[in-house]
Amino acid sequence: MRAVLKNEPAPGAKLVDVPIPTPGSGEVLVRVDAASICGTDYHIYVWNEWAQNRIKPPQIMGHELAGEIVELGPNVTNAKVGDYISAESHIVCGHCIQCMIGEKHVCQNTSILGVDRDGCFAEYLIIPEDNLWHNDPDIPLDIASIQEPLGNATNTVLAGETRGRTMAVFGCGPIGLMAIGVAKACGSSWIAAIDINDYKLDLAKKMKADLTINSNKISPVEAIMDYTHGSGVDIVLEMSGAPAVFNQMLKVVRAGGRISLLGLPEKALPVNFSDDVVMRGLTMHGITGRRLWHDWIVGRELLKSGLLDLSPVVTHHFDLGDYAEGMDLMTKGDCGKIVLYPGGVR
Amino acid sequence: MRAVLKNEPAPGAKLVDVPIPTPGSGEVLVRVDAASICGTDYHIYVWNEWAQNRIKPPQIMGHELAGEIVELGPNVTNAKVGDYISAESHIVCGHCIQCMIGEKHVCQNTSILGVDRDGCFAEYLIIPEDNLWHNDPDIPLDIASIQEPLGNATNTVLAGETRGRTMAVFGCGPIGLMAIGVAKACGSSWIAAIDINDYKLDLAKKMKADLTINSNKISPVEAIMDYTHGSGVDIVLEMSGAPAVFNQMLKVVRAGGRISLLGLPEKALPVNFSDDVVMRGLTMHGITGRRLWHDWIVGRELLKSGLLDLSPVVTHHFDLGDYAEGMDLMTKGDCGKIVLYPGGVR
Amino acid sequence: MRAVLKNEPAPGAKLVDVPIPTPGSGEVLVRVDAASICGTDYHIYVWNEWAQNRIKPPQIMGHELAGEIVELGPNVTNAKVGDYISAESHIVCGHCIQCMIGEKHVCQNTSILGVDRDGCFAEYLIIPEDNLWHNDPDIPLDIASIQEPLGNATNTVLAGETRGRTMAVFGCGPIGLMAIGVAKACGSSWIAAIDINDYKLDLAKKMKADLTINSNKISPVEAIMDYTHGSGVDIVLEMSGAPAVFNQMLKVVRAGGRISLLGLPEKALPVNFSDDVVMRGLTMHGITGRRLWHDWIVGRELLKSGLLDLSPVVTHHFDLGDYAEGMDLMTKGDCGKIVLYPGGVR
Amino acid sequence: MRAVLKNEPAPGAKLVDVPIPTPGSGEVLVRVDAASICGTDYHIYVWNEWAQNRIKPPQIMGHELAGEIVELGPNVTNAKVGDYISAESHIVCGHCIQCMIGEKHVCQNTSILGVDRDGCFAEYLIIPEDNLWHNDPDIPLDIASIQEPLGNATNTVLAGETRGRTMAVFGCGPIGLMAIGVAKACGSSWIAAIDINDYKLDLAKKMKADLTINSNKISPVEAIMDYTHGSGVDIVLEMSGAPAVFNQMLKVVRAGGRISLLGLPEKALPVNFSDDVVMRGLTMHGITGRRLWHDWIVGRELLKSGLLDLSPVVTHHFDLGDYAEGMDLMTKGDCGKIVLYPGGVR
Repeated sequence: MRAVLKNEPAPGAKLVDVPIPTPGSGEVLVRVDAASICGTDYHIYVWNEWAQNRIKPPQIMGHELAGEIVELGPNVTNAKVGDYISAESHIVCGHCIQCMIGEKHVCQNTSILGVDRDGCFAEYLIIPEDNLWHNDPDIPLDIASIQEPLGNATNTVLAGETRGRTMAVFGCGPIGLMAIGVAKACGSSWIAAIDINDYKLDLAKKMKADLTINSNKISPVEAIMDYTHGSGVDIVLEMSGAPAVFNQMLKVVRAGGRISLLGLPEKALPVNFSDDVVMRGLTMHGITGRRLWHDWIVGRELLKSGLLDLSPVVTHHFDLGDYAEGMDLMTKGDCGKIVLYPGGVR
Repeated sequence: MRAVLKNEPAPGAKLVDVPIPTPGSGEVLVRVDAASICGTDYHIYVWNEWAQNRIKPPQIMGHELAGEIVELGPNVTNAKVGDYISAESHIVCGHCIQCMIGEKHVCQNTSILGVDRDGCFAEYLIIPEDNLWHNDPDIPLDIASIQEPLGNATNTVLAGETRGRTMAVFGCGPIGLMAIGVAKACGSSWIAAIDINDYKLDLAKKMKADLTINSNKISPVEAIMDYTHGSGVDIVLEMSGAPAVFNQMLKVVRAGGRISLLGLPEKALPVNFSDDVVMRGLTMHGITGRRLWHDWIVGRELLKSGLLDLSPVVTHHFDLGDYAEGMDLMTKGDCGKIVLYPGGVR
Repeated sequence: MRAVLKNEPAPGAKLVDVPIPTPGSGEVLVRVDAASICGTDYHIYVWNEWAQNRIKPPQIMGHELAGEIVELGPNVTNAKVGDYISAESHIVCGHCIQCMIGEKHVCQNTSILGVDRDGCFAEYLIIPEDNLWHNDPDIPLDIASIQEPLGNATNTVLAGETRGRTMAVFGCGPIGLMAIGVAKACGSSWIAAIDINDYKLDLAKKMKADLTINSNKISPVEAIMDYTHGSGVDIVLEMSGAPAVFNQMLKVVRAGGRISLLGLPEKALPVNFSDDVVMRGLTMHGITGRRLWHDWIVGRELLKSGLLDLSPVVTHHFDLGDYAEGMDLMTKGDCGKIVLYPGGVR
Repeated sequence: MRAVLKNEPAPGAKLVDVPIPTPGSGEVLVRVDAASICGTDYHIYVWNEWAQNRIKPPQIMGHELAGEIVELGPNVTNAKVGDYISAESHIVCGHCIQCMIGEKHVCQNTSILGVDRDGCFAEYLIIPEDNLWHNDPDIPLDIASIQEPLGNATNTVLAGETRGRTMAVFGCGPIGLMAIGVAKACGSSWIAAIDINDYKLDLAKKMKADLTINSNKISPVEAIMDYTHGSGVDIVLEMSGAPAVFNQMLKVVRAGGRISLLGLPEKALPVNFSDDVVMRGLTMHGITGRRLWHDWIVGRELLKSGLLDLSPVVTHHFDLGDYAEGMDLMTKGDCGKIVLYPGGVR
């Protein structure tokens, strides 16, 4: 089968031909019909510091997908050949304290598809039965494949109250864009979207942001404090990882507000905890993964009901073989989500 | 001034001419521009059992309003003549345990406009400064006057999670209708609205209910269990007070779900707590009043943002003098909210 | 092996000799060292209406235990022979909506040890691996066997805030007694314990209830309203199922308070929802099972830390063969928890 | 009257004789019987950077007190001469968004006794009626005066779940010590207390810390990770403001855990948000003031019930005139709470 392999500890990846794998006990073999590119895949591709410390080539990339089960390993009890599925990419241990109390998204022993084992940028993929998500039959392939990052967006937005609340979303990559859509569907009364790329800000507008701010041109702090009459917004979602944002976000959130952090800054950032966090009674919290399966279900419900329309988020469709074109596009920045199709674009 | 007076302990009310009252310390005099009729006003008018036990005629009726401050009493510090206001109808003590911990909506010493003291079905009205709500200048009079019951709807809907959740709303009176609108604005993925009046069900559809059920014609239990594949809905809002609903609601809510009760049944109703509440891990809770001022603010935010459109809820506009016509309409049932105008319909 | 068998659809049970069962895939064989009697076992024994509808004899009784793994079935991965274990009695499906969102205690397809399949009133027992709880080595056998009902108590107490809150516990059976201990360990500032049996009230005092009330002699309503200066307590735990309590509990809980229901009334009970629940903003919720594994972990932590001492709760120790003596004692009522020992009392 | 005056913008303070002030509308005059020294008072005394930016001398210091009302200003309705009171030191506006939604502790316009207006290191003091707390008659003067900082401790501890949870408290000043006591009273199963002063660690032990760690001698990270088998504690309370602690606390808290920040670091501190906060799903939040009046009530309940004993926290008693001795003691560090008595030590 064709597969995009991270073949060596250096920038880039290689399209290779490898044998179709065989599912073990409790696993299934899935034919990948659509696989979307995540920022993590991009980091592995460009071989940034995080990737150098975590990834052990050779390994097939990719962890967001939609496809069909084509073969069952032994002891599979809740899946059958022909099922239309997506997958939770985090394989959790089930036995650490976090798994035992229902916080599997912070399992101490998480292993991730396409990060710690072979992923879905390939014609076929092995997935543990417990990680399967059964899709509604009428969800399109591209939307089905981005439910995993939608889960991140949902986890971030729903980590606190949003109903009747104002919000600033810093960073309009795919998860930021989806978070805007989820937040509007969930009662956020006003959302300012901030980025430095006008293409992405245009997508933010399509996702129903009330105000878009190119922070290279306009001060987000001024614009937001002006709208909120000096109080600040109830909620900040930090989806950029950009150091400059960490100063801005602390200025635009109201006293007693919350800052949900999903973006990954590359290095330690200084925070004036006394003035900005303690004295103002702020909450800052990190978001990782998806609350299983709560956030998948909320995503499905919002999509099915029509309250959430993700179609503006998916901007490009490529054959799997053209993955490098997708990666280049991500470097340039004029894109939303890019979807690869191992069996050809559909 | 003209006023609708509950003049004697018997059904009905009387349009009378009384002196304009004078505001005391910490109070303001308000010119009433719009006053909407609540179910409570109707109960006082028809003189039901509750009214007989609570109301001490003679007393001016009404507690939902929009108007303008025309005179300040002594020691008023945060209001001025000319302010466009509405009012929280519950005057709380501020000193009971509930008031001290921020649960003023269940104050042990609540006194209510139009119930325990003169109300707003009149050209003028006295309101304590602490009960004033400053309206946005561009909110229409009729919508401004129904923010108080909107607060009940918001309190009910937001008493638990709604985002990505399914719901059944029993009873499509004005608060039920507003609750449907608030719930859809706040991410409810599917709402079944149940009533026995097709006019009201038609309004429910306009408020974005996904399914409307006339329970005189169709079994709500069957329809809802069918849609939810036998699991039941996450949430029930009981806005009817009808005894028949108490059986239905316990059957259509999923195990672990919540039932928020706002409707007021006239007598005690039997519940099989073992099978229906304990073994299924249900939550049932009563909703009264509005969380001050949280629910007023959420209402304002949803209205201002356009996420919530209450215009379908207001179906009739009358001059104050035609209050009896409004009451008759409520008896018949083919109405949403009815608004009275002491200065003539605008 | 010896086993207490519910042998026919009639009151009573029979001590029989049956073959030791063989564990299937994902199951283990456990030697039962201690097994405590639950109210459910008693209901099965006396063959009440619930039991007649649910139980299909012949079946071995019992579901609370401590013991040692003596044999592994195939595909067991997280247990080994010699492990000192107790067990969650609710076997859940893992696939219904409740299981998917972390509410396994209200799984739609729960099957229960000793209720829906053979239980632990026997020398040996089969348990699915996923239901095993690994005990701390130094927890005594009798306390280890009552961790399952301790989980019910913990689930009830922790279903809302307790820290600095006042409480009334109606019903001082073993779960009520444990709830008192858990609540005091978790910051409840004042607890009134109510029962009609002085032996049980004496145990309540040992569990640190601040006031004990024999409701056959003194009015709990008067005593509690007196102590709380007419406000009522923040929390009621209903652990009795007695119809009379349902009236009392609604009178002693403060407006805005919560009532957690664990007791199982035998028939439907009337509630004046308008006056007692809606207008007072009460929360009533049913408690079933244990939140997996949160409540087990909290129980372990409270025991290990010494904040909770359950030794007063266990009042009687019998050889398994003397089960009928235990049942007779429960009829009389002068007991706390009764523990049976299949290998002889230790 | 005698008063400790911050007389000039420089280190130190001066004992002066000034006229007894007169209460204005809504205010009362209080005779100060006990006044305890807060870290804030110390910062004002030593004239640190924060004090230089905030304090406008001349001004009477102090904000923690117990005393008796001796005179009422006009329009006081809920207090009378002779009342035994303490006071909430934060005077809030009541009209900002935070005040309106019940988050008065983060009011945008807070003014503080002894910081923004004359305080309680004097024989008499003016307090707005709304800031009075009525003491139980049998609470001792010294304990009554430290209820205000107890409220900070309660606010910090109760900001998340504690029941059956493990904890590390960094910094054993008076608020840290009180937090340990509150947390143990509220079900924390294991508490490690960390400081660099053995006198304070000895007090921590008296407040029921399970493990005390002098971080100048032993690595708190090693000790805590060892006890928790590498998982970390559920909760960290940061009560020190020490830069070194910010690294340690992020290492000892478990993934998914919470860090409550009350200490005030003097400058910005770098945090590796990617690895330490986002990827581990941590919550960090700042705590300021007390939730009105929830935290005062919880404090009263814990004290009254005997679940919390604060007597070990108060280590020194001085006549008001000996305030400088108290300040010197705080520099040395071998003290808990120091209480001043304007009418002589009682």
